[in-house]
Amino acid sequence: MPKSALEFAESNKANALAELKDFLRIPSISTLPEHTGDVRRAAQFVADELKRIGMENVRLIETQGHPLVYADHLHAAGKPTILCYGHYDVQPPDPLDEWLTPPFEPTERDGNIYARGAVDDKGQLWMEVKALEALLQAGPLPVNIRFLAEGEEEVGGEGIAAYLKEHPEELKCDVALVCDTELFAPDLPTLCVGLRGMIYTEIEVRGARTDLHSGMYGGAAPNPFVALSQVIAKLKDEDGRILIPGIYDGIDAPTAAELAAWKSLPFDEEHYRETEVGSSVLTGEPGYSVLERTWARPTLDVHGMPGGFTSAGAKTVIPAKALAKVSLRLVPGMTPADTFEKLKGYVASIAPKGVSIEVRMIHSGEPIVVGTDNRFVQAATDAMRAVFAKETVFVRGGGSIPVVGDFARQLKVPTVMMGFGLPDDNLHAPNEKFNLSNFYRGTESIVRFFALLGA
Amino acid sequence: MPKSALEFAESNKANALAELKDFLRIPSISTLPEHTGDVRRAAQFVADELKRIGMENVRLIETQGHPLVYADHLHAAGKPTILCYGHYDVQPPDPLDEWLTPPFEPTERDGNIYARGAVDDKGQLWMEVKALEALLQAGPLPVNIRFLAEGEEEVGGEGIAAYLKEHPEELKCDVALVCDTELFAPDLPTLCVGLRGMIYTEIEVRGARTDLHSGMYGGAAPNPFVALSQVIAKLKDEDGRILIPGIYDGIDAPTAAELAAWKSLPFDEEHYRETEVGSSVLTGEPGYSVLERTWARPTLDVHGMPGGFTSAGAKTVIPAKALAKVSLRLVPGMTPADTFEKLKGYVASIAPKGVSIEVRMIHSGEPIVVGTDNRFVQAATDAMRAVFAKETVFVRGGGSIPVVGDFARQLKVPTVMMGFGLPDDNLHAPNEKFNLSNFYRGTESIVRFFALLGA
Repeated sequence: MPKSALEFAESNKANALAELKDFLRIPSISTLPEHTGDVRRAAQFVADELKRIGMENVRLIETQGHPLVYADHLHAAGKPTILCYGHYDVQPPDPLDEWLTPPFEPTERDGNIYARGAVDDKGQLWMEVKALEALLQAGPLPVNIRFLAEGEEEVGGEGIAAYLKEHPEELKCDVALVCDTELFAPDLPTLCVGLRGMIYTEIEVRGARTDLHSGMYGGAAPNPFVALSQVIAKLKDEDGRILIPGIYDGIDAPTAAELAAWKSLPFDEEHYRETEVGSSVLTGEPGYSVLERTWARPTLDVHGMPGGFTSAGAKTVIPAKALAKVSLRLVPGMTPADTFEKLKGYVASIAPKGVSIEVRMIHSGEPIVVGTDNRFVQAATDAMRAVFAKETVFVRGGGSIPVVGDFARQLKVPTVMMGFGLPDDNLHAPNEKFNLSNFYRGTESIVRFFALLGA
Repeated sequence: MPKSALEFAESNKANALAELKDFLRIPSISTLPEHTGDVRRAAQFVADELKRIGMENVRLIETQGHPLVYADHLHAAGKPTILCYGHYDVQPPDPLDEWLTPPFEPTERDGNIYARGAVDDKGQLWMEVKALEALLQAGPLPVNIRFLAEGEEEVGGEGIAAYLKEHPEELKCDVALVCDTELFAPDLPTLCVGLRGMIYTEIEVRGARTDLHSGMYGGAAPNPFVALSQVIAKLKDEDGRILIPGIYDGIDAPTAAELAAWKSLPFDEEHYRETEVGSSVLTGEPGYSVLERTWARPTLDVHGMPGGFTSAGAKTVIPAKALAKVSLRLVPGMTPADTFEKLKGYVASIAPKGVSIEVRMIHSGEPIVVGTDNRFVQAATDAMRAVFAKETVFVRGGGSIPVVGDFARQLKVPTVMMGFGLPDDNLHAPNEKFNLSNFYRGTESIVRFFALLGA
């Protein structure tokens, strides 16, 4: 082990945290056009640091949307090349009034750092940068490194997908490292080996030509929110089964060995319901465990229903149109295109009278399962075991990291998903946090991972 | 007829319009707290003009919300006393991007004035003020006048209701005049003799304790928008029948004579669908004509569903809560309290699992039918016939003017609802307008109405 690299990382903790706070202060919300400048500022922040620590060929790569950040260091002849990935964009912070401290004013409480992006994914991206800094400080890098960060992960990642498709030769590598997942439980080293895909859509219902007074026209004009509710009520039954015909056809079930491994994970459904979800009961497709439902079964959610009158008080309007933001999570055996066609066809078949309906795809990602029988996963397992002093477990994730599919398809390389978040880190929600000891353990794990691969 | 009053009104048209424009420039949106100052400014604008034209005892009356404007002129001994009513508050202007010209920059086009509040109700209130000005200019007022305007009509009118209940003696009168309705068709003099009541409610559904990531929790956490949609889908069937048990019990049907009169009105359902509603088909309770459905049957509408993610783009959140703004229109035989209880009980009985539901009343108003066999309605009929040279028709309105019920209950007086809007005036919608010739004919009709009552 490169002792001096680990020593540097240890002695550099305060600097790493101060830098991360500066990074978190930039509201790089990729989905909101008014933050375009902030997103670029975050990209430049990453690029500047990569240059400072000694990475080479540092540059912003322009895309149709937000830029990519690229850097490399390719002087370890005969050693493997690792593509380090992270994303510097974040989710919107709303609802703002539920944050205990402002989302873009990082605040330490109880050994955590609270801010939008703390764990998803600025904190985890910063672990990679700090691991590289430690190794570069200690001597020649033990492996070859390419670094590629994107600013569109939260909005579908089209820029990086296009770049991977068009320039695979510029990203030649042996394995990708993605730090954007989580530990299954505190102190339990975890590698993620499968992710759900998704389609994110908008369903728009139009009734009357213009907004109408509900006193004068109530009883004659179609109400698009009622019609949209009728459509949504038919997408899922009350047990949580998706009603889109054929949606469950052709799904690849997890292997018996994988299901058995999941059963042995430390998972207490009642504790999960109480502390993570906080609802009176859990919902979802009958006949499957929570881990199966969230990792290996398709699901459907509505994220919001814009349109009409949404302020405080009362407005007696029959809106001309209503929208719903609806996504499905996909599992192996499903494709975004086929799922979208099934959704679209079904919605058309159940459209209530008097309204017109359009279903639009906003973005999508393929589901993925990565192999575990390779030396990269082995090295990651060993690195994490050394840091946590525990056996590493393999899990899947319910979320989507579409770029992992692109690495497989375009670069033909496996991905190691080594993440250090915790289940209660409030990703995409108010009071997002990152446990500081996991920030430091993550940095050390990555240092060890690179050293093992270069040994 | 007081020729000089009519002559003054005729010669004063340009002034009246210029003043109305100034009035319309004040964004007196009663439902939005940030416009509280503007609402008061509009009240003061009305008070200043009442003082200028010679009305007496002009003052703002404070309420729990926005102020009332009061004035009187009580020197016509032995003549009837008329309480003139109007409201100076307006609906919110959204969606802003559908206005051809800004909602608070009144613009003349094709003989109309376009602005939020043009017809509902600033323009019609201003007819009353201008009619009083014309009569005061011409000599002693032929009748006694009390003037009472409110700034909370669009948010339930609690202030005026409370004042009427507590101070009926200060508003002693023989009849109320409300100018807040419309002509059934262009050039067809119309008196409104019935209005629907309403309850305006919010249905709030809560699932998880906090917003959750739909990738990680989709399949386990309850989705409040799906649950809310399931509830709404059960409030009305796809034919438009309300499914709340008992909702149609005890409704007073219109008389055979009234139904016959409605049938003879110039109403072309296809033209109405095409030009007013602009939808592919009309919807609503089967077995009833459009006029019956909108005037004499209860209806239910959803006005918006706030909560979750509503911006452009994508956010993969399972929101902790979802809201729906839902109102019902009531007809004679129904009461707000009973209807609210029925809605609340039914929603509780159909609540999907995993969520909690609360139904809140925002405001309400009683349905009303006014008598037509009195000299006030007769004088109004004669006044409008003289101006329009056509027989006046009696109709009902689908909307709610709760104060008419308060006039009956607290002051024990009938109300004459003489309105000059048109069906396509876009009340509560973008591009609200008021036809200028109706603004002037309305002023003349009121002058004649007062003169006939004083004769």
